[in-house]
Amino acid sequence: MVSIMTTEQRTIAFVIYPGLTPLDIVGPLQVLAGLAAFVPEYRVAVVAANTEKMPSDSGLLLAAEYTFDEVPDPFIVVVPGGMTPTLAAMTDERLLRYLRESASGAHLMTSVCTGALLLGAAGLLEGRRATTHWMFVTVLAALGATPARERWVQDGPVLTAAGVAAGIDMALHLAQQLEGEEVARRIQTMIEYDPEPPLGSIDWSTVDIPGYTPVLEQTMREALGEHPELLEKLVARLPRG
Amino acid sequence: MVSIMTTEQRTIAFVIYPGLTPLDIVGPLQVLAGLAAFVPEYRVAVVAANTEKMPSDSGLLLAAEYTFDEVPDPFIVVVPGGMTPTLAAMTDERLLRYLRESASGAHLMTSVCTGALLLGAAGLLEGRRATTHWMFVTVLAALGATPARERWVQDGPVLTAAGVAAGIDMALHLAQQLEGEEVARRIQTMIEYDPEPPLGSIDWSTVDIPGYTPVLEQTMREALGEHPELLEKLVARLPRG
Repeated sequence: MVSIMTTEQRTIAFVIYPGLTPLDIVGPLQVLAGLAAFVPEYRVAVVAANTEKMPSDSGLLLAAEYTFDEVPDPFIVVVPGGMTPTLAAMTDERLLRYLRESASGAHLMTSVCTGALLLGAAGLLEGRRATTHWMFVTVLAALGATPARERWVQDGPVLTAAGVAAGIDMALHLAQQLEGEEVARRIQTMIEYDPEPPLGSIDWSTVDIPGYTPVLEQTMREALGEHPELLEKLVARLPRG
Repeated sequence: MVSIMTTEQRTIAFVIYPGLTPLDIVGPLQVLAGLAAFVPEYRVAVVAANTEKMPSDSGLLLAAEYTFDEVPDPFIVVVPGGMTPTLAAMTDERLLRYLRESASGAHLMTSVCTGALLLGAAGLLEGRRATTHWMFVTVLAALGATPARERWVQDGPVLTAAGVAAGIDMALHLAQQLEGEEVARRIQTMIEYDPEPPLGSIDWSTVDIPGYTPVLEQTMREALGEHPELLEKLVARLPRG
């Protein structure tokens, strides 16, 4: 929404790549575009290896406005997740380099869902508490992190959110941390985030997490078959009944 | 996620157009792509006038997989909203024709946020209860609807949701209605929609709705200046202190 860049402006960079889960990016993007609308010091910039359209996991195609090179020094980076394509992106050196280079100057590196695996693959979770989608939480230990099952986890300059929809909550927390409660409330009201899940909250006691291990192991083998060292490190951390 | 079309398949068409609010579409899309993953009888199809990339209101570019002509007979249609570009789209005859033609055979026409204004412009809210973003609820009366302030409103074959994030709740309601509680719960768990807004729910007693009338009137005049009849009909329904 802010189109004029100044050196004072704080850029929140949203990294996209083919096959991601679109709600992972669009939840926090809508919140933080609201921040940029209310506080012009901020701007959002969607970045990728190129600006061509790319598939998501849900039939919607996405495209970035900027290439990585055009947004070299973001204030905050948001990394969305997904399934097979996100696991495959753990070996995308161009993407990982952007994350590492950004991290050296950024105020905060953030992820939604399995975007945390990309932060981890870039070496940015080493020694930090972090979270991700409930299916993958234990796997974070393979990347040097201390896994936590929380809606979002902040550890120094790294803020990670749980799965998919958790990115909305994390981004509101971030808006509040940056600009205070009043601004965060205005954003929440503008996007009418007043949740009424028709069946209420998730009853986690009914979710058999180790039951997903066979399908996750299969997904990991498809995505990372050519990277056996990383693959076995991740598979070893899948929960076993 | 389902790529093979059969005549049995139920297509859920998501209509996109330049300048929309991406969370309006991506919330229900992520939910109903989950429905299609669990129940192969369904497929999601993002449709637009063309398949070129188009801007959204938040720096992310979007593109449809199909043109309107390629998805002539959807089972369900989802129409997202936005601000100025959505008001302008109320006079986009190609878009309105797609909505009218779809409505003649569809099981359900749905909207998120000001997408309801597009259903209304197509004549599909006449005599029906409906809702939209809280700023615009009273305006629905100008389109023949009975405005309601609810999270979602179903009246016969028309299902409308409140603003932006309400599309997630509406789509879960819809998944439950179509395929039952168990499927809806699985989708909710998969996208980890277990909301924890850091500042809690919206306190509507603090939101001065008529206070937004001057800026909304200005927005309407920008979007619909060349359509004075429609413009004045809408402006007349804005809430006055």
